[in-house]
Amino acid sequence: MPHPEFLPIQWKSTYLELLDQRILPGKKEFLKLSTAEETIVAIREMAVRGAPAIAITGVFGLTLGATGKTGTAKPEEIEFLLNAVLESRPTAVNLSYAIREAKNRVKGITDWKSIQKIWETYGLEMMTEDLAANKALGANGVSLFPKDQSEFHIITHCNTGALATAGHGTALGVIRSLRDAGKKVVVYADETRPFLQGSRLTAFEMMEEGIECYVITDGMSGWLMNHRKIDAVLVGCDRVAANGDTANKIGTYNLGIVAKEHGVPFYVCATKDSFDLNLKTGEEIPIEMRKESEVTQFDFLKSEDGKYLFPEGKTSPQGARALNPSFDVTKAHLIKNFITEFGCFLPSEISLRLKTV
Amino acid sequence: MPHPEFLPIQWKSTYLELLDQRILPGKKEFLKLSTAEETIVAIREMAVRGAPAIAITGVFGLTLGATGKTGTAKPEEIEFLLNAVLESRPTAVNLSYAIREAKNRVKGITDWKSIQKIWETYGLEMMTEDLAANKALGANGVSLFPKDQSEFHIITHCNTGALATAGHGTALGVIRSLRDAGKKVVVYADETRPFLQGSRLTAFEMMEEGIECYVITDGMSGWLMNHRKIDAVLVGCDRVAANGDTANKIGTYNLGIVAKEHGVPFYVCATKDSFDLNLKTGEEIPIEMRKESEVTQFDFLKSEDGKYLFPEGKTSPQGARALNPSFDVTKAHLIKNFITEFGCFLPSEISLRLKTV
Repeated sequence: MPHPEFLPIQWKSTYLELLDQRILPGKKEFLKLSTAEETIVAIREMAVRGAPAIAITGVFGLTLGATGKTGTAKPEEIEFLLNAVLESRPTAVNLSYAIREAKNRVKGITDWKSIQKIWETYGLEMMTEDLAANKALGANGVSLFPKDQSEFHIITHCNTGALATAGHGTALGVIRSLRDAGKKVVVYADETRPFLQGSRLTAFEMMEEGIECYVITDGMSGWLMNHRKIDAVLVGCDRVAANGDTANKIGTYNLGIVAKEHGVPFYVCATKDSFDLNLKTGEEIPIEMRKESEVTQFDFLKSEDGKYLFPEGKTSPQGARALNPSFDVTKAHLIKNFITEFGCFLPSEISLRLKTV
Repeated sequence: MPHPEFLPIQWKSTYLELLDQRILPGKKEFLKLSTAEETIVAIREMAVRGAPAIAITGVFGLTLGATGKTGTAKPEEIEFLLNAVLESRPTAVNLSYAIREAKNRVKGITDWKSIQKIWETYGLEMMTEDLAANKALGANGVSLFPKDQSEFHIITHCNTGALATAGHGTALGVIRSLRDAGKKVVVYADETRPFLQGSRLTAFEMMEEGIECYVITDGMSGWLMNHRKIDAVLVGCDRVAANGDTANKIGTYNLGIVAKEHGVPFYVCATKDSFDLNLKTGEEIPIEMRKESEVTQFDFLKSEDGKYLFPEGKTSPQGARALNPSFDVTKAHLIKNFITEFGCFLPSEISLRLKTV
C-alpha cells in the first residue's frame, strides 16, 4: 500500500479528503470536499477515479449532502441527492449499486441527522469491505500463477491499485500479492491515453512499492509480447455483463485482442460489485463519451493556482476534432478468467458463481 | 498537398530548408541546414521523419557534406560521410538504398565539386520521382475501393502524407486520391504515441486539405471498429521483408491485429524503395530503440527560443522507466494487400512483383 500520506480517500467526519489524481505524479495535493456538489465535480473531473473508489466517494458525497441538515428529509430531496451523485459517471456499475444500497438503508428514515449517520457508516463499511475483498482477490489471483516459477512479467492497463480502490487494488492487488508471495514481478504499464492513468498513477504506485515497472505506450503491447515472455495481462473492470463482456478503460479491448493473438492469458480482476447480471451482453453497457480536448491536448495537468500548467499543451491543431469514448467493451471470448474475491472462473460461469456470493 | 509555405523539404542550392516537424502544429518554423552534421541531427531528432523524406533529406545531407569542398575527395572521406548519414536512423530501408545509390553515382569521381553536383542532382531527382510514385500509388489504391460507394471511413496510423514524402503521401496519398476521385473520406487518425505524428501532423494535413478527420488515441481502434463501419486501415511502412512482414511506426502491429479481428482490410502503402528482399522475415529488420523520456514526458515540444515548452511536462514520476521501440513489425498474415506505384498485390506476391519493377 502507498505511504499513508498518499491514501486517496480519507473521511474526516465533516469533510472528505481526496488525493487529487489529476495532478499526480507531479504534485501530491489533497482536495477538501465539504458538499455533495463538490464531490460530484471531483468524480466527474476525475480527481478520483477507479470504479470502487468512485462508489466509496459517491457514498461520502451523499453523507456530505446530508451533513449539517436538520429536521425532516422529504423523499424528493433524498431522491434528488441520490440521482445527482449517481449521474456523476455512468459506466462503472459499482456506483449504481452503492446508490441503491444507500437508498435502501434510509428507507423509512426521515430525519437528516439519522440519514447522515447511516450513510457515513455505510461509506466506512465499504472502505473496510473493499480492502478485504481486494486482499482476497489478490490471493486468488496468485493461485493462477505457477508455483514453481519465480519471476513473472505482466502487462496492465490503466490504474487498478490503491489509488482506484480502498487499498491494495484489484489487478495491481494481484501484483502486490504475487510480490508478497515472494515472487519477482516486472510490470509493463500501458500509459493509458488519454488520461495517462498508467504512466502517472500505476508507475507511481509501483515505484512506491519498489516493484520494477516500465511504462509503454498503448500501441507497444504487441511488440512487447513478441520480444519478451509475457506471463499474463491483468486488468480491472468497470462493469461486467452476464455473458462476460467487460467494460473497462478505453484501450483494454485492443489489449485483449493482442493478448489473444499471442496466446497470453488475459485476466479481468473484479469484485462482486462489478458484475451486472441485468445486462445480457456488453452492448447494453452505457459508455461515457468525454470531451474531445482530453485527446487533443494534455489539459488535465493543473498548477498550484488551479490553472492548467500547459494552456498551450495542444497536441493537435487548433480546431482539430477527436473522439473520446472513456471505456470500451472487451468481448468475453478474449477473457481467460475472472479473478474475484470469491474465486477464479470462466466468463461462462458468471451467473452460476454470482448466485453463490 | 499542403500550402506551399509548408513544403517540408526545400533545397536552396547552398542550404536545405526543413519544416521542423517536432513543433508542428503549434509553430511553423523552418530549419536552415548548411552542413551534413546539422542534417544528421535533424534526422535523428525527427525534425524530418517518414521513410521517403528521410532518404531525400539524407542525400541533401551528403550534398551539404560536399558543398564548399574543393580538390580531391579521398575514398575514406566519402565513405565516412556516407556512413555518417546512413546511421542517422536504422529502421527505414529507403535511406540505405539512397546511400548505396549515392555511392554508386560517384564511383570513380574524385573531385568534390563534381560529387556535390551529382548528389544534388540525385536529391532533386528523388523528389520528382517520389512525388510521381505517390501519385501512381494513390491511383492504384483507389482501385481497391468499391466504385459505387460514395463515402469511406478509414483509420490511419502515424503520418504518411506530404510531410513524410516529397508530396501527396503514401497512405494519406490514397486518401487524397480518393477525395480527388470525388469520394467523401472520413479519416480517423491514431494519435501515434509517443511522438504524436497522428494528432500533430496527420490532423494538420487533413485540416489543410479540408478532409474530415478525428483524432483517436492508439487504444481506440477496436472500439471504433465496433461502433462505426470502417472500410479500411491504411498505413505506410519503413521496411518490408521478402515474406511481407512490415516494419512501421510502433502501434501499427496492434492496429493490424485489431483490424484482422474485425475483418477490416489492412493495406500497407509502399513505394518500391520500401521493400528489402535481402531480409527473409521481419525478425531481421533492425528496430530503433529511442530514449525513454519520449514516453515518460512530452519533451518534443520546443518554444521559440529552442527550450522545451514543457520542462515539467512529465507524464510519469521522476525516475520512471519506459520502453521505447520506435517501430514494430506487422506480420504478413495481417496484411490484405500492398498498395504500390506498380500495382496492388498480396504479401505472397512480393518477390514476383519486385522482379518486374
